[in-house]
Amino acid sequence: MRLSELSARAGVPVATVKYYLREGLLPAGERVSATAADYDDVHVERVRLIRALVDGARMSIAGVRRVVEAIEHPPSSWHDFLGAAQAAISDDTPQPQDCDRARYAVEQLGWGDSAHAHTVALLQSALDTADRAGFAVPAERLVAYGSIMERVAEIDLESLVTDTEGQGPSAALRHVAVGTVVVDPVLVALRRLAQAHLSAARFGATS
Amino acid sequence: MRLSELSARAGVPVATVKYYLREGLLPAGERVSATAADYDDVHVERVRLIRALVDGARMSIAGVRRVVEAIEHPPSSWHDFLGAAQAAISDDTPQPQDCDRARYAVEQLGWGDSAHAHTVALLQSALDTADRAGFAVPAERLVAYGSIMERVAEIDLESLVTDTEGQGPSAALRHVAVGTVVVDPVLVALRRLAQAHLSAARFGATS
Repeated sequence: MRLSELSARAGVPVATVKYYLREGLLPAGERVSATAADYDDVHVERVRLIRALVDGARMSIAGVRRVVEAIEHPPSSWHDFLGAAQAAISDDTPQPQDCDRARYAVEQLGWGDSAHAHTVALLQSALDTADRAGFAVPAERLVAYGSIMERVAEIDLESLVTDTEGQGPSAALRHVAVGTVVVDPVLVALRRLAQAHLSAARFGATS
Repeated sequence: MRLSELSARAGVPVATVKYYLREGLLPAGERVSATAADYDDVHVERVRLIRALVDGARMSIAGVRRVVEAIEHPPSSWHDFLGAAQAAISDDTPQPQDCDRARYAVEQLGWGDSAHAHTVALLQSALDTADRAGFAVPAERLVAYGSIMERVAEIDLESLVTDTEGQGPSAALRHVAVGTVVVDPVLVALRRLAQAHLSAARFGATS
């Protein structure tokens, strides 16, 4: 298909598709003349993916590039996947000087051996933000939240195994990177709905 | 204290504090001369709150304004708090045309009576984004995530009650709005750490 059809099928303006091509987020089409190239379904799917990451998950172009590169060059072993996928979706996390509190919670949860430094920094950075907002999260509560999020991660891993069975490493890496990023807002929305449910049960109906 | 001291104590440039004053996010100081006003600790705390919401939680200025207004004019009854706080922190959620899938999950979870339309829309919008990224979340998995997030919400509500006991409605509303927004990234980081832990246990050490 030509650029105009790719644009129409992916639901993204031609100028935006050209921008993705220039930025290297989208592989070049097969050149058919001096001014035209041919694209296929892989391009349509890639444009939709970029769009969802930018618009839906509010990722930066640099972040999207890391995800795309990781999908194109997945690690060869299963156990390196998660690290590669998580590194790809980590936006330029600020590096807090002192990650003691995050590290302490990670140790309490028994996650110390597997914790990547950039994810520990992500947690510490979130705790620092909460502090600055005048909303400190006590260590005990942090560990309680962690135990619950481990059950979320169990579903994540189970779905990785069942959804990508028999598919290649690219599909698995895509599942981890994209699945993590796009499910975050789903969990955030579910948390608010659960709060409303419990609040209504405890304090009375919220009309 | 003068503007320069407020700026120094909150760790925010004078120009930024002036911007917050112009935008009405920060109450005016007590005028002491034609060119100077006096500020107090309430101003310092408010500037830190705005900063954390904008920088840390990446809220829009419009969103911060809603939070600040809700804190200044809290509802008079406990059971209206959550709705007011959640409305304040909802960025301009896109209104999906069809919220059937979100509504179905909410009903399955037994949350139907308390679910605010804007939070259901937030969930549907997150599901639509996941679809566009080629990562559909099956209904069964969505309900499983929801049951787990209800346990997160239990901790949220318990901490609301213990942390704000004996304080006024403003403190409680601040707790719900700020606590929800700043704890989201903490949960997101914990999810990634838990994934790494379970992945290492299942697929081998991730060095």
